[in-house]
Parts: sequence; structure tokens; C-alpha cells
Amino acid sequence: MDFMIRAATPEDCKDISRMIMELAVYENMPDQVKISHEVLEQDGFCKNPFFHCLVAEVAEQYRTTEGYTVIGYALFFYTYSTWKGRSVYMEDLYVMPEFRGEFPGKGVGTALMSKVAQVCKEQQCVRLQFSVLNWNTPSLDFYKAKGAQDLTDSEGWHVLRFDGEALDKLAQMAPKN
Amino acid sequence: MDFMIRAATPEDCKDISRMIMELAVYENMPDQVKISHEVLEQDGFCKNPFFHCLVAEVAEQYRTTEGYTVIGYALFFYTYSTWKGRSVYMEDLYVMPEFRGEFPGKGVGTALMSKVAQVCKEQQCVRLQFSVLNWNTPSLDFYKAKGAQDLTDSEGWHVLRFDGEALDKLAQMAPKN
Repeated sequence: MDFMIRAATPEDCKDISRMIMELAVYENMPDQVKISHEVLEQDGFCKNPFFHCLVAEVAEQYRTTEGYTVIGYALFFYTYSTWKGRSVYMEDLYVMPEFRGEFPGKGVGTALMSKVAQVCKEQQCVRLQFSVLNWNTPSLDFYKAKGAQDLTDSEGWHVLRFDGEALDKLAQMAPKN
Repeated sequence: MDFMIRAATPEDCKDISRMIMELAVYENMPDQVKISHEVLEQDGFCKNPFFHCLVAEVAEQYRTTEGYTVIGYALFFYTYSTWKGRSVYMEDLYVMPEFRGEFPGKGVGTALMSKVAQVCKEQQCVRLQFSVLNWNTPSLDFYKAKGAQDLTDSEGWHVLRFDGEALDKLAQMAPKN
């Protein structure tokens, strides 16, 4: 195999930050990224980290024209289901376009995702969840081919969010006791 | 106000467990609940807890015919957005039917949710997310009236899951390195 999957270190945060932006560009929302590599270092490598991250690294001979050897990542954290217990949520899974499909010893995305699944099982977690945009059919097909269920289609789950002013306003309504 | 919102203690796990089942019955999936109050105690009150929980408690004079005074809960945990940073996910928000709407000093659900929003802000989290079933219009209306956005409708996010055999199979594909 011409790549390896390993746990990210603080030194990988610049690469992870670069790929977070690449993924946001692919998802047509690049202006949404507000997190710097310094914040990633702080939040992911503190005593009780807010996330965990795996990276895919290729041998020197395959480095990109810009000199990158860290070419994919999977960022995840632990969640909890009140029905089933400990779970994992995979926030991001990304492989640089030139390392998808045709790359020798291919399957970088599958390798990253299956390592997350392995960590999930080791930690007695019963579910691995994540979100995909409905127009992103290559990704939806990729995940479904591996056995993932689309809970929005099958059960009708919608994701809702409070942020910005709506979140501030809600927090201000909290009772004093 | 005739109720208070407070952090759950291990002693509340029997009440929380009872209400988790009541909520699952409302969501038409009671057979999905596999978590006992003992597991909740273990996972929520260990050194690095998998979740946090607030409960709503009424004064003795309002206790139910079965003798319950803990009549609502909000269960949440910390997550991470690679675009915005620290976030909160509210897994469950529940108030027993007889304490909704007309209860004196009403607004138990709003009080619980706004306390979660307050904790969210205190912890420098920028988002509060949660999931709602698409047929559950009373809840969708309740959240939207408070300013929540439906990201499945507006951006097309679908929730996907690996569990059971699909998760086992995926984990077995992990590279050895």
C-alpha cells in the first residue's frame, strides 16, 4: 500500500485546515469556514479534546506538485444515543481529488472511514453517523454501497440548528434558577 | 415559577430512562430503546461523561398520579464543526404531556432548551443542533418559531448511519497499519 492512515498530530493541523477549505469549496460553501489551524490545534489536542482526527499520508514519491503528502483526513467525535448508547459522529471525510479512485493501492477514503469504524467498535460504540448534502450523489452512492442507511429518507429525520442571533436570544430566555 | 431546571444527578437516571421510553413511544419507535438506567448512570456520570443532562422538576403539589416530580429533560453533548468550531448537539428534549402548554408558569420545554443554549454560550459553542422527525409538525413549529433553521430543507443535509452488520463489515476493512 502506498499510503498510511495514522492519528493526526498538532503538526498536521495546517494540512487539515487546508483540506477543510478544499472540502468546503467542493460543498459550495467556502465562505462558511471560520476555523484556523491554531484553533484546530487548541481544540483537538487539549486535555479533553473536542474531536479526534485520522490522516492519510502518501510516500514522498507521490507528493503533490505543491509538496503535500498528507492528502486525506477523517475528523470525528463521540456522541450519545439515548436509545442505543455510545456512538461516533464523523464530521468530515475528505481525500484530495487526485488521490481518489485511480491512485495505486487505491481506496484512501474507504481506508479512512473503515479506520473510524474500527475505533468506533473498539470504544464500544454502536453507530457511526454523518451528514451528506442531497445533491452530492457520488458521496451518497459511495456510502450506501458500503451499507449506510439514509435516515432522512427512511425515517424522515431533519437536522435543525440555532446559531447567531437566534442562539443568543434563546440563551437569554433561560430561567435564573 | 412552579418548576426548576437543574443538572441531572445519578439518582435521576431512573426518571430519565422512563422519559426516554415515553419519547420513543411518541416517536413510534419504542422497540428501539436498548439503554437501561444503569448504563445511563455509567455513561453520563463517569470521568469524561458521554453526555450531559438537565432535568425539569415540579414542586410536590404538582406531582403526577404516579408520584413523579421530574417531568422533563434535555440531554446534550459537545460536538465540533470544522467550519465554526465548538458546538452542542441536543439529543433529546422532552416534557411529559400534562406539563406542556397549560401548566402554571408554563414553558417547561422552552426553559430546558434555553438553559441548554445558555450552557452552549458559556462554553463558547457557536451552534446548537438537533434532529426532528419530518411528521412531527408540533415540534418543528415550536423550534422554528424560536428561530431554528431546518438545514435539511434549506441546504439539503441528509443524516446517514452505519450500524449492526454494516458497521462490523466496515470496521473489518480497516488497514492494518
